Amino acid sequence: MRVHRRGREPSNDKLAPKAVVGRVSLYLRQLEVFQRQGQATVSSNQLGAALGLNDAQVRKDLAFFGQFGCPGIGYRIDELTPVLRRILGIDRTWRLALIGLGNLGRALLQYRGFRDQGFRFVALLDNDPRKTGKVYDGLPVQSIDDLASAVVTLDIRMALISVPAEAAQAVADRVVACGIQGILNFAPVALNLPPQVQIVDVDLSIHLEHLAYKVQNAHLSGNEPSAEVG
Amino acid sequence: MRVHRRGREPSNDKLAPKAVVGRVSLYLRQLEVFQRQGQATVSSNQLGAALGLNDAQVRKDLAFFGQFGCPGIGYRIDELTPVLRRILGIDRTWRLALIGLGNLGRALLQYRGFRDQGFRFVALLDNDPRKTGKVYDGLPVQSIDDLASAVVTLDIRMALISVPAEAAQAVADRVVACGIQGILNFAPVALNLPPQVQIVDVDLSIHLEHLAYKVQNAHLSGNEPSAEVG
Repeated sequence: MRVHRRGREPSNDKLAPKAVVGRVSLYLRQLEVFQRQGQATVSSNQLGAALGLNDAQVRKDLAFFGQFGCPGIGYRIDELTPVLRRILGIDRTWRLALIGLGNLGRALLQYRGFRDQGFRFVALLDNDPRKTGKVYDGLPVQSIDDLASAVVTLDIRMALISVPAEAAQAVADRVVACGIQGILNFAPVALNLPPQVQIVDVDLSIHLEHLAYKVQNAHLSGNEPSAEVG
Repeated sequence: MRVHRRGREPSNDKLAPKAVVGRVSLYLRQLEVFQRQGQATVSSNQLGAALGLNDAQVRKDLAFFGQFGCPGIGYRIDELTPVLRRILGIDRTWRLALIGLGNLGRALLQYRGFRDQGFRFVALLDNDPRKTGKVYDGLPVQSIDDLASAVVTLDIRMALISVPAEAAQAVADRVVACGIQGILNFAPVALNLPPQVQIVDVDLSIHLEHLAYKVQNAHLSGNEPSAEVG
């Protein structure tokens, strides 16, 4: 059995919707679970069932990126896993700057999931002089004035911004000026960025609102169309 | 102009998909922006444009919950806003327990967005004796042994779990035993829960994987089907 894949290019000249990309992350996690359990192949039905999705949804999501698997047989896990990592762009190590070393920043620095997926913090920055010079996780906290040189020296391509809302735009402007290509923004504010800089906003209250919706409508539970992780 | 709404019941006996609920949260935030700017009505086109969505998507999302607005005119912001808050279940105050007062827990406690949407932490719990007795944000950290009595006394219906992965299932079991109805889980582990308890898992690495995908495919940028917040 082979994974039929039409090259490395997406089968599509569009960016995949956020929901599809999110599910690819889930497929990858679930494939790794099956692999640890000693399984070699998996059907779209089985992969979907583990995530509360039907098999057609699994096939449609993967079809966005190319043609994989064999009809009636399924996917070879050791072939599909690296393909999904390549699709997501996590077949490499990404070197990150973390800007803002408050409680949230320090929590993000320790977040095990990032390291597991190849994301590595290589520079910590904060404009609070009480924080600069401290060392977290082996890295010294530098002044934001040092960002430009850190980006060049350390080959940083993405930044996590976990500063207060009122400071976020000014920080983002400096990040952009340094040539960083992507921002994961935890500040509860919409940032204005030039189109060549990619952004993903993380709004934690949306998750809590979704929980409120589910608790309020618990009598409808079991009818949710798909299990998704936020 | 009136908002035509067929009662308070959903027009549907299904739970709305996570993506739809997430967009309702975004609509609500955007309506509040328009309202602060002094606007009284908004069209689906205008609401969508502000969020990178087309007007058909906006109308379809809202139609999941009932019939709102007037064709050709739009929505009255002061009527639609409370309806959306009621749909999400945030037309009330939710009293929350926060379990796990590490960096992430303390960051969540300070997260401004929760309070703005009516979520209020009323109990802090941790099983680390070095943390119990400390006071954060005016609340003492209690032992997890005190959870059951706190739930009853303080009318707690939802819990945020921000403990290490290896402790999360045991904590979740105690949360369930206390009659809490919903869990927002930040621990990077799948929890086994009885069906009557609602859960939303927050996996922060999925957001970073989405950013990696966007940076890697920046040449396709501008073709993303919809702007969504994670």
